[in-house]
Amino acid sequence: MHLHQGLRHILKRRLILFRFCEYGRSYSHNSIEGVSRLARRDEIVKFTERFDFPKATHTIWQLYREASFQMQLREGATPKVVLHGWIDSPPRKVSRTRAFANLRDVQFLYRTVEQVEKQKHEASDEEVATIQLFEDLTERSSDIDNPSVTLLRRMKQETCVCVEGYVCKSKGNISWRLEVVVDRITVLNSAEDLVSQMRGAKDWDPKYRYLQLRSFRLQRALAMRSRVAGLIRNTLEGHRFTEVETPLLFRSTPEGAREFLVPSRTEPGKMYALPQSPQQYKQLLMASGVHRYYQFAKCFRDEDLRKDRQPEFTQVDLEMAFAKASDVQDIVEAILVQVWKEIKGIELQQPLKRLRYMEAMSRYGIDKPDLRSSMEIHDLSDFATSTTDPDYPVFEILVLRPEDSKFPPAVFAPDGSPSLRTPLCHRIKLSNEGPSKWLSESVAKFDLELVADLETTANQIMQKFDIRDGDVVYSCTRQRVPFENPTPLGRQRLFIMQETMNLSEKLDAALWVVEFPLFTPTATGRVVNGYIEYDYSRLVATHHPFTMPCLESLPAVLDAGEDQSSRIDARTIFGQHYDIVVNGVEVGGGSTRIHDSGLQRLVLSRILHVSGIRPSNLEPGEAEPENPFTHLLNALSMACPPHAGLALGFDRLCAMLNGSDSIREVIAFPKTQTGSDPLVDSPSRVTDEQLGVYHVQLRK
Amino acid sequence: MHLHQGLRHILKRRLILFRFCEYGRSYSHNSIEGVSRLARRDEIVKFTERFDFPKATHTIWQLYREASFQMQLREGATPKVVLHGWIDSPPRKVSRTRAFANLRDVQFLYRTVEQVEKQKHEASDEEVATIQLFEDLTERSSDIDNPSVTLLRRMKQETCVCVEGYVCKSKGNISWRLEVVVDRITVLNSAEDLVSQMRGAKDWDPKYRYLQLRSFRLQRALAMRSRVAGLIRNTLEGHRFTEVETPLLFRSTPEGAREFLVPSRTEPGKMYALPQSPQQYKQLLMASGVHRYYQFAKCFRDEDLRKDRQPEFTQVDLEMAFAKASDVQDIVEAILVQVWKEIKGIELQQPLKRLRYMEAMSRYGIDKPDLRSSMEIHDLSDFATSTTDPDYPVFEILVLRPEDSKFPPAVFAPDGSPSLRTPLCHRIKLSNEGPSKWLSESVAKFDLELVADLETTANQIMQKFDIRDGDVVYSCTRQRVPFENPTPLGRQRLFIMQETMNLSEKLDAALWVVEFPLFTPTATGRVVNGYIEYDYSRLVATHHPFTMPCLESLPAVLDAGEDQSSRIDARTIFGQHYDIVVNGVEVGGGSTRIHDSGLQRLVLSRILHVSGIRPSNLEPGEAEPENPFTHLLNALSMACPPHAGLALGFDRLCAMLNGSDSIREVIAFPKTQTGSDPLVDSPSRVTDEQLGVYHVQLRK
Repeated sequence: MHLHQGLRHILKRRLILFRFCEYGRSYSHNSIEGVSRLARRDEIVKFTERFDFPKATHTIWQLYREASFQMQLREGATPKVVLHGWIDSPPRKVSRTRAFANLRDVQFLYRTVEQVEKQKHEASDEEVATIQLFEDLTERSSDIDNPSVTLLRRMKQETCVCVEGYVCKSKGNISWRLEVVVDRITVLNSAEDLVSQMRGAKDWDPKYRYLQLRSFRLQRALAMRSRVAGLIRNTLEGHRFTEVETPLLFRSTPEGAREFLVPSRTEPGKMYALPQSPQQYKQLLMASGVHRYYQFAKCFRDEDLRKDRQPEFTQVDLEMAFAKASDVQDIVEAILVQVWKEIKGIELQQPLKRLRYMEAMSRYGIDKPDLRSSMEIHDLSDFATSTTDPDYPVFEILVLRPEDSKFPPAVFAPDGSPSLRTPLCHRIKLSNEGPSKWLSESVAKFDLELVADLETTANQIMQKFDIRDGDVVYSCTRQRVPFENPTPLGRQRLFIMQETMNLSEKLDAALWVVEFPLFTPTATGRVVNGYIEYDYSRLVATHHPFTMPCLESLPAVLDAGEDQSSRIDARTIFGQHYDIVVNGVEVGGGSTRIHDSGLQRLVLSRILHVSGIRPSNLEPGEAEPENPFTHLLNALSMACPPHAGLALGFDRLCAMLNGSDSIREVIAFPKTQTGSDPLVDSPSRVTDEQLGVYHVQLRK
Repeated sequence: MHLHQGLRHILKRRLILFRFCEYGRSYSHNSIEGVSRLARRDEIVKFTERFDFPKATHTIWQLYREASFQMQLREGATPKVVLHGWIDSPPRKVSRTRAFANLRDVQFLYRTVEQVEKQKHEASDEEVATIQLFEDLTERSSDIDNPSVTLLRRMKQETCVCVEGYVCKSKGNISWRLEVVVDRITVLNSAEDLVSQMRGAKDWDPKYRYLQLRSFRLQRALAMRSRVAGLIRNTLEGHRFTEVETPLLFRSTPEGAREFLVPSRTEPGKMYALPQSPQQYKQLLMASGVHRYYQFAKCFRDEDLRKDRQPEFTQVDLEMAFAKASDVQDIVEAILVQVWKEIKGIELQQPLKRLRYMEAMSRYGIDKPDLRSSMEIHDLSDFATSTTDPDYPVFEILVLRPEDSKFPPAVFAPDGSPSLRTPLCHRIKLSNEGPSKWLSESVAKFDLELVADLETTANQIMQKFDIRDGDVVYSCTRQRVPFENPTPLGRQRLFIMQETMNLSEKLDAALWVVEFPLFTPTATGRVVNGYIEYDYSRLVATHHPFTMPCLESLPAVLDAGEDQSSRIDARTIFGQHYDIVVNGVEVGGGSTRIHDSGLQRLVLSRILHVSGIRPSNLEPGEAEPENPFTHLLNALSMACPPHAGLALGFDRLCAMLNGSDSIREVIAFPKTQTGSDPLVDSPSRVTDEQLGVYHVQLRK
């Protein structure tokens, strides 16, 4: 088989050369002289080698992992193989006639934890991404000086090659290691010097992203991402979801983040917008009678970038008709359990813990609590109330035990926030100062009103929460329904976790946070009594305007229909929104949607004050001005079924599974912090003519 | 179980009402009076029903298809079920107390041909998308007049409902038909009158696409598309492909179709462009060491739309490192064989036929021949040469047998083409005119130079091609290497097929067309001697500039390096491009790419005359001006491996599998011919302020 292939290869090359000679004859009356014809002949040979090479018989991975091949070796065979790959490091000449080098190919399949365990092997996947090549020219020593013979020893690092040779066990100490004795090596493509220069550098120029991507680490990340997508698809298809693609040339909508615009050529002056999510289209799919929809959706948000944001990103988007929150949550849990098991070998406990927003805020001070620490914030409302500002009455503490060796200081409030938003930090020293010093400091700072005298209250608190000598008490205040998120103690808790725990060693902790405030009050921009002031009746949608209120909040919402908008208070209305949170990261979010057009109209018009929308359903024949929600309101009014859905941030999910801090590690061609791609130099300038076709021009 | 659920449901509703009453009390000092509180109470009940409904126990599909359920029925049970869906047609009142209606849900899974065969059932999938509901109020006749009781008989068409009832065999003639005796029916969402008005109309307003999508036909098409995507992914993953997503915010490139532009906010005056295909990024992935890449890629082309084009479309994009055409073709054949088998129940013969471009053009007169007819064009160069124009010397005929009842006339040349591009059409009548009349007409029209006298030549031709009395002979001329595509006889052949064959009954015919001319000459815009004139040395890339020349054409390409560009003739250079063609439709195309930076430079600079590109590789330290190909040339020069790939037009493939003429049938939310989406009213106007953020303004 190998021989046959080699033979065919040689014959084919002869044929090309023969044709070239013919060509040379027929065109020899032109300017090509004998010498240049010889050069041309060399060129043709080079191209023929580069484009007409023998097929690989194996990948390096297969040499190491394939049972049948390993069997051949154990039986003493030295099988002939053809391998493709790159020279991983500069060849090492060990004598006048002998040289070594490593060949790399990254043609592995991502293996799940179970697969790795099943096929136990001494060598890791990374170790079998390369194999040692050995070239012995003892019997071909004349080749050493003949520059026209292609030899391993003359290869530059990263040269792309085809190696034909024989596989045997390596003579070194490591029993599993193999070696290829090179019979013939052919250059498939050469590498500029720049490549090996850069291999040494620590920071790669992002202009050469493709060189970074050749690393085992990034190859593995890409393969893992592909595998995770496959696992998610399998789970969803097992639950009878239909994959439906929705348009990317969408329209501008008033809510949400800044949108990328795409000028239309055929409708002068009009613009498409790239979607922030397929939210509206997926709700339209529900009105279309699609039972269960999913899509790996490309989304776009033109926000200033942080390390975990990209202007374009991917979300696993799903929606279910005739469904409620629990139906969606069950599916998402099935996905996470499957993925965590196969990728990380971790069995997540089902059903996941569910925390209401209020509980998450009061126990962990944040709406996406990191439950890898059991540390909790204690609400001291039974003992004391802060009177500095009536909107921030709740006094609360966080206690750090002395078994934690480090005592992180109180974290400062973010820039511009008043100092009352920095927790008070106090280490209990009973012998020096008694049990009430910490509380008296708090009383002073937060104007506490205690239920009893200082000593009694302090003792009661210390007893109830088992505060002991040496503990550190962090104290602060919060709103009764907190919109400051994280709260100062929530921020403090995270800081303590970072400083005192080895988080990467902890078991991953996933949970649902449910029943968020449906609306968020607007900050007035003023600081009153040292606190940020909110207007609780000027509201924006916490997530988006399509979230269904909790049934218990319905009466309060319906009140808005009475044109008493001043009575709507953000603190009284909760919505059927749910976030899936892993290790303090919001991996996805979703909600039960409003499928009743009357209720949707009421929310948009009376509460969010979107202009041009009638507060109740139209009478037959009645029209309202076209507005960005017309299509959705129409669709709801035509018997759209009840529906609920969710979107998972796929980049973030993959980064988490990969143990990466940044989503750039799991994206082949990420944009920089400024939204550019130095690799292809985008964005770039275009001609005025190109712009003119789209009826726009640059602003002077 | 059902009882339990029902009970929970009722209790929950009570709870909400109880809470409402509490709410009513606490807020009663406000303006809500007794009457309005009663109205509010009704409202709350309505919402509670709409949002807190019992789970479905079955889908209609399951009632008909699930073996265990069918078993229960055979044993005489009348199982209680909960179903969700829509009232499919207006209810029919058959007596004062009895009414019927059909309930529809479209919650089926797409079934492959094999699955359909395995589970034989008298009823089609469409028939079991609805079920008859029967309401008998004999014992509840007071309900009939009570308007507050929800009854089937009062439902409008398309109302979204939850039905609780008992399943039994229908009393009609059709043995498989089931019926649900309604116990309780709840409105989940009501339908505006518009819906039933439109159900009657033939043409639906595209503004209400979601109502169209509720049809069985379109639900089935969407489900099929999802299934086909799954089949393709499985095949590719089985062949060790990695799914990699590439950016959609790309840059403008000089070749190809018109591109949508996306202004950048952070880099004033610069634009992203939406990609026409991931061609460059996938080649960069090859340079990145990805072994086998695939992606369901969103692509954008701003062209004037025809029925099978959309401004955004999906392609199955793939690329393989260290691979040649045959490797890619094997994979694509595996995909097609799998898909055709599962979706259409057809076994495609492997390997598929391969036709070189030259052969396809001479035998079928088009580069995407429809092989559902065996009819072929005959090259008569052995007998005659046309002398009207030296560029169009080949004389050829197409013969239609008398067994075909209809004789389609000669098809006219497209508008503006000279009449010499309309075939001559002649019906042989030996008794009237002898064997040479048809040829003498051709001689006159095309200035034929015959190898022998008229009679001899005519007789020889008629003998060789078995032309008989009553046959129709279509004759015309073509270029030796045809760029006119289809040729007049190619167009004639397609017309004959449409007119005389029932194409939908024919077995699907798939083939590869390979070795296309690498470059296409430019039409000068002049008509000489009745023929369109080409400049064979002013070239554009036939597909794109990255296609590898055939090795046999290499010498001619390398000649371009000698700065003799005038000598490059489009007719002498063929490229390693391959199209997959099914039933005369190009379903996909691909090529072996140029992975040698020197050769790529030569093609771009010397042949395609892209400005700013040096014709040969740069010396160390040498720089060239930034150009749109810099990144690709750099990547090739850094040991990019040989690679080949292909893209399948996924929309077109699905339309073909679905038997649809238009790809709009397999796209959930297609754009109209003018690129707009009437459903969401995109594109739309945005504010000057929004534009200003992106540093552009409308052109005055």
